Amino acid sequence: MGRRVAILGTGLIGGSIGLGLAAGRLGPDIVGYDPDARAAAIARKRGAVGSVAGSAAEAVTGAAMVIVCMPVDLMPASFASLEERVPPDAVVTDVGSAKGGVVRAGESAFGARFVGGHPMAGSERHGAAAADGRLFEAASWILTPTARTSSSAYASVTEVVSALGATAVALDPEVHDDLVARVSHLPQLAASALVDLAVGTGSRKELLGLAGAGFRDVTRIAASNPDLWVAIIKSNPHAVLDGLVRLEDRLRSLRHSLAGERWGELRSFLEAARSARLELFAKPEFGGHPIGLSMLVPDRPGVLAEVTTAAGELGANIEDLRIVHSTEGGRGRLELVVAGEASATRLVERLRALGYRAEKEQVS
Amino acid sequence: MGRRVAILGTGLIGGSIGLGLAAGRLGPDIVGYDPDARAAAIARKRGAVGSVAGSAAEAVTGAAMVIVCMPVDLMPASFASLEERVPPDAVVTDVGSAKGGVVRAGESAFGARFVGGHPMAGSERHGAAAADGRLFEAASWILTPTARTSSSAYASVTEVVSALGATAVALDPEVHDDLVARVSHLPQLAASALVDLAVGTGSRKELLGLAGAGFRDVTRIAASNPDLWVAIIKSNPHAVLDGLVRLEDRLRSLRHSLAGERWGELRSFLEAARSARLELFAKPEFGGHPIGLSMLVPDRPGVLAEVTTAAGELGANIEDLRIVHSTEGGRGRLELVVAGEASATRLVERLRALGYRAEKEQVS
Repeated sequence: MGRRVAILGTGLIGGSIGLGLAAGRLGPDIVGYDPDARAAAIARKRGAVGSVAGSAAEAVTGAAMVIVCMPVDLMPASFASLEERVPPDAVVTDVGSAKGGVVRAGESAFGARFVGGHPMAGSERHGAAAADGRLFEAASWILTPTARTSSSAYASVTEVVSALGATAVALDPEVHDDLVARVSHLPQLAASALVDLAVGTGSRKELLGLAGAGFRDVTRIAASNPDLWVAIIKSNPHAVLDGLVRLEDRLRSLRHSLAGERWGELRSFLEAARSARLELFAKPEFGGHPIGLSMLVPDRPGVLAEVTTAAGELGANIEDLRIVHSTEGGRGRLELVVAGEASATRLVERLRALGYRAEKEQVS
Repeated sequence: MGRRVAILGTGLIGGSIGLGLAAGRLGPDIVGYDPDARAAAIARKRGAVGSVAGSAAEAVTGAAMVIVCMPVDLMPASFASLEERVPPDAVVTDVGSAKGGVVRAGESAFGARFVGGHPMAGSERHGAAAADGRLFEAASWILTPTARTSSSAYASVTEVVSALGATAVALDPEVHDDLVARVSHLPQLAASALVDLAVGTGSRKELLGLAGAGFRDVTRIAASNPDLWVAIIKSNPHAVLDGLVRLEDRLRSLRHSLAGERWGELRSFLEAARSARLELFAKPEFGGHPIGLSMLVPDRPGVLAEVTTAAGELGANIEDLRIVHSTEGGRGRLELVVAGEASATRLVERLRALGYRAEKEQVS
């Protein structure tokens, strides 16, 4: 991290990344660019970037890592325009909230050196003035390696994620988009639709008299920035459309239960949702001792994606990940730390089934 | 309030009403009944009721006021069974979360002496052990007078509401049910449906990695008690069915905007919801000086409903209401306190248009 990092887009997320990295022990040389010169100036003044470039192309010149933090719908065009300008050994990552199209565009421009990312942190505020170097502490940061992703590019990006205090979670890009449609994009549209229905009738005083904490909670996100949300939904249309169809089906089937006075069906539906909600946010069990795994891996694309998504599917929490490249080249050693004996054992079994010679060792 | 009050159902709401009234300067003689003898014993032990009756019929004997706090779907049958047992001069009110059917049943059993109510306060906890005499402080308490409601019954109930620290808001029962479907019952069903969709796929770890504060907020109420919600929705089926149809329509129309890539439509929808949400929960303007209104009113049913719903429609906040019965009988003086000169003027005009000789006076 001692080398040059380019941050393209110095709003809330880009500015927070810059502040977080600048605060680190080995603060890199950070150059920023934002089409809004005022935003870039604020980021510079706050110390989120060390210098401001006059263009994206200038910013990426000589960079070891490029972190693209612009609006997600502008990313594909930006990648294409930077393809020739990003140094051939630089790693490129992004923070877009949808990943399928972005990853396809990133890999088309930068090949194995592109690693899609999506930090799960934000704020109701926006812009460089609201940036916070601790925004990502204890947050999840989704990374979406594919069969093409290079191990070393992935490791560089996880290093940045760790430096910011976040935990990397690997997901397939399409799985990411489907899940994020369900836990973020659909709730956003539903919250807005509920506000729309509520204010369609009744005076403000009557509504306020009736609207309790529940309504406040459910509709809080309806106050979000519409431009941001148009960009987000534009970048994930298929998963959102699919989710809307499912939500409509769900509501229609509920309506049929009600119309048929089948109260047992209504109760089962509410009970299942209640259990799922309680379980989802229950305090996690103690993860157990950290267990180290290590294995020799061929130095080829796809290894990282295979290993990390295997861990994700098993629910094994990768607490640390390191790649030690062999001096002979052609292969390297992958070292993981997983929480809990049981998770580590399941992961070793899965990795062996996939052909890796994974070994387990206790970490002190 | 020095006379006997019967509380039927001594759970969270009934117990909290009892504790709140018992703490008052003129704490009445409170008798409680609950089909669950343990709940009644807890209420007695905590001082929410002074004594426990062996049956609902026994509890209402000699009562000046009966407050029905049982599950809303059981109310109509309970009213019918108590019709012969409630003293002929007693006022009856309830706390059910749906009002159309309850008010029809209440008026059929108790005529003009029935006043429907719905306190807008609750808690995620339930049962007598969670009861809190301050639960209703600063909350709205919807009352649903109709053309049949007697002025003195309404005044008695508002006295209880005020004694508990809540503000009475008058609404037509059907308007109440429509609004409450939109701000409470539909959000509940939508939150449960969103949880159901989210957990249909992905591991817990993946979901937790992606689900941010927004998802937590939107789905918090999905953890509510399913039995309670079946009872609530059962008691308001028409408005909920109507709301579900509207919500489905809304989502379908959104889906068509997305499928047609009509991003301007999506933006307008999100922007309208954002403005409405911000406006709804904006800090209210300073209400202005309290202004007293007074008028002679005929001592006939319907007067209260007419006056209070006129105020509600104008958005005028009735801060206090008192009825002074004329010694000659046949008419009385209605005294109101309204916040703000402008509201008071509008209300006086409206009341005069309705044939009342309303006068305005400054309150010190």
